[in-house]
Amino acid sequence: MNATILGDGFPCKPASSVTSHDFFFDGLKNEGNAKNSLGSSVTKGNVMAFPGLNTQGISMNRIDIDIGGINPPHSHPRAAEIGVVIQGHVKVGLITTENLEYSRLMLPGQIYVVPRGLVHFQLNVGQDKAFIVSAFNSHMPRTYVDGVDLFCAKPFVPYDVLTKTFHSDQSVLDNIYKAFPDSKCSSFSSVG
Amino acid sequence: MNATILGDGFPCKPASSVTSHDFFFDGLKNEGNAKNSLGSSVTKGNVMAFPGLNTQGISMNRIDIDIGGINPPHSHPRAAEIGVVIQGHVKVGLITTENLEYSRLMLPGQIYVVPRGLVHFQLNVGQDKAFIVSAFNSHMPRTYVDGVDLFCAKPFVPYDVLTKTFHSDQSVLDNIYKAFPDSKCSSFSSVG
Amino acid sequence: MNATILGDGFPCKPASSVTSHDFFFDGLKNEGNAKNSLGSSVTKGNVMAFPGLNTQGISMNRIDIDIGGINPPHSHPRAAEIGVVIQGHVKVGLITTENLEYSRLMLPGQIYVVPRGLVHFQLNVGQDKAFIVSAFNSHMPRTYVDGVDLFCAKPFVPYDVLTKTFHSDQSVLDNIYKAFPDSKCSSFSSVG
Amino acid sequence: MNATILGDGFPCKPASSVTSHDFFFDGLKNEGNAKNSLGSSVTKGNVMAFPGLNTQGISMNRIDIDIGGINPPHSHPRAAEIGVVIQGHVKVGLITTENLEYSRLMLPGQIYVVPRGLVHFQLNVGQDKAFIVSAFNSHMPRTYVDGVDLFCAKPFVPYDVLTKTFHSDQSVLDNIYKAFPDSKCSSFSSVG
Amino acid sequence: MNATILGDGFPCKPASSVTSHDFFFDGLKNEGNAKNSLGSSVTKGNVMAFPGLNTQGISMNRIDIDIGGINPPHSHPRAAEIGVVIQGHVKVGLITTENLEYSRLMLPGQIYVVPRGLVHFQLNVGQDKAFIVSAFNSHMPRTYVDGVDLFCAKPFVPYDVLTKTFHSDQSVLDNIYKAFPDSKCSSFSSVG
Amino acid sequence: MNATILGDGFPCKPASSVTSHDFFFDGLKNEGNAKNSLGSSVTKGNVMAFPGLNTQGISMNRIDIDIGGINPPHSHPRAAEIGVVIQGHVKVGLITTENLEYSRLMLPGQIYVVPRGLVHFQLNVGQDKAFIVSAFNSHMPRTYVDGVDLFCAKPFVPYDVLTKTFHSDQSVLDNIYKAFPDSKCSSFSSVG
Repeated sequence: MNATILGDGFPCKPASSVTSHDFFFDGLKNEGNAKNSLGSSVTKGNVMAFPGLNTQGISMNRIDIDIGGINPPHSHPRAAEIGVVIQGHVKVGLITTENLEYSRLMLPGQIYVVPRGLVHFQLNVGQDKAFIVSAFNSHMPRTYVDGVDLFCAKPFVPYDVLTKTFHSDQSVLDNIYKAFPDSKCSSFSSVG
Repeated sequence: MNATILGDGFPCKPASSVTSHDFFFDGLKNEGNAKNSLGSSVTKGNVMAFPGLNTQGISMNRIDIDIGGINPPHSHPRAAEIGVVIQGHVKVGLITTENLEYSRLMLPGQIYVVPRGLVHFQLNVGQDKAFIVSAFNSHMPRTYVDGVDLFCAKPFVPYDVLTKTFHSDQSVLDNIYKAFPDSKCSSFSSVG
Repeated sequence: MNATILGDGFPCKPASSVTSHDFFFDGLKNEGNAKNSLGSSVTKGNVMAFPGLNTQGISMNRIDIDIGGINPPHSHPRAAEIGVVIQGHVKVGLITTENLEYSRLMLPGQIYVVPRGLVHFQLNVGQDKAFIVSAFNSHMPRTYVDGVDLFCAKPFVPYDVLTKTFHSDQSVLDNIYKAFPDSKCSSFSSVG
Repeated sequence: MNATILGDGFPCKPASSVTSHDFFFDGLKNEGNAKNSLGSSVTKGNVMAFPGLNTQGISMNRIDIDIGGINPPHSHPRAAEIGVVIQGHVKVGLITTENLEYSRLMLPGQIYVVPRGLVHFQLNVGQDKAFIVSAFNSHMPRTYVDGVDLFCAKPFVPYDVLTKTFHSDQSVLDNIYKAFPDSKCSSFSSVG
Repeated sequence: MNATILGDGFPCKPASSVTSHDFFFDGLKNEGNAKNSLGSSVTKGNVMAFPGLNTQGISMNRIDIDIGGINPPHSHPRAAEIGVVIQGHVKVGLITTENLEYSRLMLPGQIYVVPRGLVHFQLNVGQDKAFIVSAFNSHMPRTYVDGVDLFCAKPFVPYDVLTKTFHSDQSVLDNIYKAFPDSKCSSFSSVG
Repeated sequence: MNATILGDGFPCKPASSVTSHDFFFDGLKNEGNAKNSLGSSVTKGNVMAFPGLNTQGISMNRIDIDIGGINPPHSHPRAAEIGVVIQGHVKVGLITTENLEYSRLMLPGQIYVVPRGLVHFQLNVGQDKAFIVSAFNSHMPRTYVDGVDLFCAKPFVPYDVLTKTFHSDQSVLDNIYKAFPDSKCSSFSSVG
């Protein structure tokens, strides 16, 4: 019997081999390196990094954003997100499937919720680095970064899909593509 | 007690007032009008249109695509999709969260599956109109159309979110915005 | 550790070995052979046939019904069903657990919903072959055909179970059994 | 907004008006009256009878079976069942969707499990009354009694549905119908 | 890839190797030995004892309580419970997270429900042995016995956690610890 | 139709009346007052406080612990928890249903996971205040504080339940009760 893609169901280990390492994780301890073109870094505490989360239906990320940096519009296909600003002044916004945008300037201690799958972004609008903790109701929420999905995909999304989608001639599309050089695709990927 | 957004939980009616109208729906009977800038039309059979689906965890759409038309890259935050080409030659593609693109030319009777939340598109590559039936494991799958979420949102997504996301100066961004005039946002919205 | 019956949980394959074959399926392309005693054929696109559906919670069947043929009363223990008539004139009916019957003559493009586990049937009442596409919110909905469960079971359901259930003497029961000869049990089984 | 059939979602009451009546239920205290044509009685402790079960995903029935009586083949579309024989000698059987029958003589203290939606029956094969306690993982499991769904439905299942299903002429069908007079449909209904 | 603790996901066996042993279980047939310091015994019919329950989302225990015995306050982290008194006079109580206690004297045939995770107890207040059947909507409900979790844990819960929790000096705590000697921890464990 | 206890299903409001207030919450902004007998404070961001969480399956708390203070052993019947130390040196421990204790000294940026329903505690072992952010995969995780459930319940848990549970004479039990005066019950309640 073959099987499917995108499965994150790992076998469980027997109770006898459980140790305290299964309940604790150091991977979010260090500030991420936000010295990239976006000025942001997402460090993931999902089941791939922290195996003890397997089947627990929960995970946690840390988001570090440099002054003026952004965690660009993105969505998590498998989870709602709740987040709290720990440090900095951050503009947090989300966009519903009715294309309504809701946003707010958030200070430390304020929290936001993003319903499952909705597009959202975090922009550092303060004079200092920002640090956000976000949590998810999935052990593997996965991430789409807007634009990256279309313009960084391999193999390329067919050219006529894009021209027809954007009702654009080749010159406009080339301009958009220029915004996603390989180097940027990689950096976005590191955000993902 | 206030409540939340995006809720689709309607009260159930008593068994005594159930009629056969609750199990049958005519709304997908007619070909949609695909004479728009995309050359496509999605007619929805979700719980808003067909109240009998309430709590059943299933719904169905029909997709009509004109010659050369496209149902542009989009995703459903709340459902996996399974679809069958009824008529025409359609290129169906999807893009994973690892930015891998999988696509195939599909003929009548062939089916595809889109895991929950993944971006996908359907492009009519044949000499005739195309007609697809798609089904969802949610009574209200909702839809994001790529690009539309960012460039049609009201109020506007902050300009610096977009320039930083696309690492672009204003002229590039203006070109992208030109691809989403109000008229197009509306037509996309009718796709949504 | 032993395990249980009726499990459809297959292991997932690693992302690196995913191909486009995992998202597309040809098995519903051809009209089923309805030249049997029921005049109908169900071709299944469940996880056994289309492994890419594994864990996706969705599947699709095609139902071909000859002139005068029937997809006899049956139920799916694990899924709600939504279906659309693609071709033909079909009487679709369902029976609730309160023994209320709801039915309707359906033409191409009309859809029906069957709540999880309810008995339903499709009868071709037109002058041409009928073709229905049905979708399920399970990767393995399974099927009971009414009567077949009791009269084709192996080993046989105890005789006194049946006589007491039907308050019937042996002659009536024999008449019912005659309606389910081995050949018919097999054909029903091919419907299942 | 209209709504759907078969919904069992009742509103919750505020914590301030909860009393111990919400956690306790007397309805299964008395032996059911099994002096009917089946020689059995099912007393239901579902959410309709015991409102405190609302949203708890669990319920319990008592089954009393007279000497020689039967709880005829039936299924619960929404729940798995686990049951224990409290008194008597009972033959318990179930039939899978592959039409395989599994059965066993059960004595007090022995338990059985019926996977969600599978057809099963309990036949008193002892010299005394039998008493079974069954539990379900739904607050409203609902019940189909085999045969009753087809032959007691109102309005009647179309005659040609039945003749084609059973490949039978009218005389056989009439014999089957005779096994389900109105009086019996009612008694089955009381079993339901 | 490592995995997590507390996983009860066992692989399913192929349909071809299923036997009637998978649906029936003798483990609750015999009265448990309640001749211990609590005067009670819980015999478990969970997935570890009865592998056929795997993935069925249901299980069943028998509780035997000697005259004057108690099934002490405990909770099941993963399941709601429904129970019926089969024999005896039992005081059943539960405590909500708002610290409200609801209790009632229960006679044979009366049932109670315990919402998922709530603390509850059963005290034999009659002149005879008591016998209760309880069912759960999980194949592995697991159990915490109040006090045992804190005072029998290995390694010990840090002493200052307990003194601070109970705002108590060492002498009080020592008295509590005396109530949980190793022998009692074992007996509680056998209750668990 | 009556209904049940412990229901947290609030009606959803129409999309037209949604505002940005539904996605953002200030309630965790301020440090909680930990000047109580436990030296800790839990500020809750659940659906009762932050209505926008309704049906989102996620919530967030902030935990402030004074020097030497403790968030005493407790459990959440409806949710797994993931938490991160933001400030301070905290000993975090959990106890499985097999009465195994796992604990660790945690510094800022380190995270822990508590499987659904397991008992856990957080003890400030550093020289400064501690601040933890915890998230849950339920909009209403609820909380039991160990000991409080038994010794603060109203009406009182029957005296013989406690003496039998703790195999203790009255003097021991009185000592335990002394550890839970009304004032402490209230403070625990404020922790809850």
